[in-house]
Amino acid sequence: MTEPLRLGVAGLGNVGTGLARLLLRQGNALSVRAGRGMRLAAYSARKSRDGMAEVAGARFHDDAAALASAGDIDVFVELIGGAGGVAFEAVKAALRRGLPVVTANKAMLAEHGLELAALSEAHDAPLFYEAAVGGGIPVIKTLRESLAGNAIERVSGILNGTCNYILSKMEQERLPFDACLAEAQRRGYAEADPTFDVGGFDTAHKLAILASLAFGSKIDSSAVAVEGIESIAPADIAAADELGFRIKLLGVAERTPHGVEQRVAPTMVEKGAPLAQTMGVLNAVSIVGDAIGELTLVGPGAGGDATASAVAADLVDVARGARLPTFGRPVATLTEADRVPLQRHEGGYYVRLTVVDRPGAMAAIATRFGDRMISLEAIMQKRATREWAEAGVVPVVLMTHGTSESSIRDALARTVEEGVVRERPQVIRIEREAV
Amino acid sequence: MTEPLRLGVAGLGNVGTGLARLLLRQGNALSVRAGRGMRLAAYSARKSRDGMAEVAGARFHDDAAALASAGDIDVFVELIGGAGGVAFEAVKAALRRGLPVVTANKAMLAEHGLELAALSEAHDAPLFYEAAVGGGIPVIKTLRESLAGNAIERVSGILNGTCNYILSKMEQERLPFDACLAEAQRRGYAEADPTFDVGGFDTAHKLAILASLAFGSKIDSSAVAVEGIESIAPADIAAADELGFRIKLLGVAERTPHGVEQRVAPTMVEKGAPLAQTMGVLNAVSIVGDAIGELTLVGPGAGGDATASAVAADLVDVARGARLPTFGRPVATLTEADRVPLQRHEGGYYVRLTVVDRPGAMAAIATRFGDRMISLEAIMQKRATREWAEAGVVPVVLMTHGTSESSIRDALARTVEEGVVRERPQVIRIEREAV
Repeated sequence: MTEPLRLGVAGLGNVGTGLARLLLRQGNALSVRAGRGMRLAAYSARKSRDGMAEVAGARFHDDAAALASAGDIDVFVELIGGAGGVAFEAVKAALRRGLPVVTANKAMLAEHGLELAALSEAHDAPLFYEAAVGGGIPVIKTLRESLAGNAIERVSGILNGTCNYILSKMEQERLPFDACLAEAQRRGYAEADPTFDVGGFDTAHKLAILASLAFGSKIDSSAVAVEGIESIAPADIAAADELGFRIKLLGVAERTPHGVEQRVAPTMVEKGAPLAQTMGVLNAVSIVGDAIGELTLVGPGAGGDATASAVAADLVDVARGARLPTFGRPVATLTEADRVPLQRHEGGYYVRLTVVDRPGAMAAIATRFGDRMISLEAIMQKRATREWAEAGVVPVVLMTHGTSESSIRDALARTVEEGVVRERPQVIRIEREAV
Repeated sequence: MTEPLRLGVAGLGNVGTGLARLLLRQGNALSVRAGRGMRLAAYSARKSRDGMAEVAGARFHDDAAALASAGDIDVFVELIGGAGGVAFEAVKAALRRGLPVVTANKAMLAEHGLELAALSEAHDAPLFYEAAVGGGIPVIKTLRESLAGNAIERVSGILNGTCNYILSKMEQERLPFDACLAEAQRRGYAEADPTFDVGGFDTAHKLAILASLAFGSKIDSSAVAVEGIESIAPADIAAADELGFRIKLLGVAERTPHGVEQRVAPTMVEKGAPLAQTMGVLNAVSIVGDAIGELTLVGPGAGGDATASAVAADLVDVARGARLPTFGRPVATLTEADRVPLQRHEGGYYVRLTVVDRPGAMAAIATRFGDRMISLEAIMQKRATREWAEAGVVPVVLMTHGTSESSIRDALARTVEEGVVRERPQVIRIEREAV
């Protein structure tokens, strides 16, 4: 057996300490599987924040860049996070030295993935990042290796545990968004500033990574159309339930006749579909390929131990000397990411309106939809509650047949202009088949 | 770019022609991903049966052993099937030459896996077999690579599409087993002699492979306790439905205090659990590890194209020069497979009895269960139909709390001896949590 692989781990937060625990617990088994020992040789951490003061037998660096340049490591493990700054500089330094890099940093990959892939290629230093998307779910390996024989048609998933926890809780306990967000913050599932998660941006970063792997395009998170979950109201959750759907924040990248469309948005998913069954902090990814048909992976999308499991898998690949192009193929063959406007959506849309209770209001709305050639599958108007009645409005839910995003937005803009609705109309895409 | 990888493909059945199609369709993309071209250089097929008479530019061999010894191939792809015979001899010949082997043959691995692993190791000729379990689902790679950092606690799954199709159809159309089997045969999902599938033996082969990978044991399909689905009656399907369960043929390998237990049996799975959602010819595998928690993979378990997708992934690994121990670690470190009697089952059992309609019959049954310290969670006795009444019997369903297989079998044997039940009692394990 060759010399043990010497790990240099930058960052001892949740994932870093999870990795240290995993090495203590599974070190021997890992060595047997990797054909080579593994040893935490050096690490860096912010003393002020990171808990683990000392790792026995490992050298401490107070700065990640110094660690990445250290002579006594064989692989640089970046668990600091953040798109740029310290993490990015240290990873570049490691790659330039020809050192393999393992990272869990999706923001860095989403923003600088192409540059890193080129560096990796130029210096023959592989870059592994299983932990960056879907926590413990092996979605990177699945797309980069297992589905190499497929033309991928679609990748979709629930990629943010915070949002899924909030939406699940809203449904299960019929609580409003704010209360569920506060509970997620209490449990440590959401940051003090939750914008990045609930605004859909974290999902967009992860989707951009998957889309690059799936479609061979240059990673570009600015090509993703993003909508968050902040506007989802209990009324939407209740209507979805009644209609046989569940609302999930989905990231979807799919091949259309006009190019690959990438979008993140709250979506109505049929209750029977695998993605609808994914509750709480679980993540799920569904991939459609020409040979395989549909493959779905469900597992823990976050958590120190589950994410460390993904980091450990990458380390075994490094120990075995695996060499893979960062995005599954040489950088020179990656195409520009498409920027296609959102296409006609065959599943149709759910629209919830607060309609002014006066004669002709519904007729005006129906006319606007008709003008845009949008045909309605269902119209639901419930008896108004006392509150609604006092406010002189009635809540109306419409379900449309397949139509385009622009037609819907346009019809609603006209409806709003005419003053027949109050509040911002709610619009949610519907996925009809198993997604 | 180096010379193309020359494939020697033995067998042009369903999977072989699927692979040929995939290479035609995706050959260029595969080359870009693998960093090396791929070419079907030679093949063997039974002229009498296999459809494709000629593959352009490839040399034809009328015997697989000759193909495995041919000088003009870089990898031997075995798609013949069958535990021994031609396939086994050809694979051994290829490994002895140091040629990498890709196979879809679960029966051969289940029966001769250890010998093949030793040959692979001795001749530094890697053996890949993603297509052997779960069709297109990348479960081999997931266990062998992605979960390398985990102590696996449990692997369970729906691994046979034929059985799952039959059970799904029995539920959806309320038809008896025989009618659904006949329909499966008409659709080509079941063989003329269906014993191997419906008797649970195919699932046992696949489970043995997964158990070896998961627990580092010498593959031994004779260590699997096997029950098939032939005895499942419409009454069981209906009772399961009423109780909130679905009956699935599960393969389960799990660590118990007495060793790893391996079993294949029809099982009641809660309708909300991911495995219960897996209908028709889909397969699903759920893996529990100490770091990752639970991971579930769902996808097509059979079909030429989906299985060819798995073969193609293995070929990319071969093209990249990947070297992995056959069962994830060196043969010398594999332990003997445990042979533990079925343990106490915390989920309890479903028992359906045809009770003789006479005073004291139920008391006799309850006494026998009480003798064995089996506590009952529920007893359901419906009004007898006219048929039942005329036969002088009543159908009774019991649900027990956690108990052991031997206690249940024992209590039922006594009950049968006393003549208070007619027909063989039906016994099905219940899985209470998400499996």
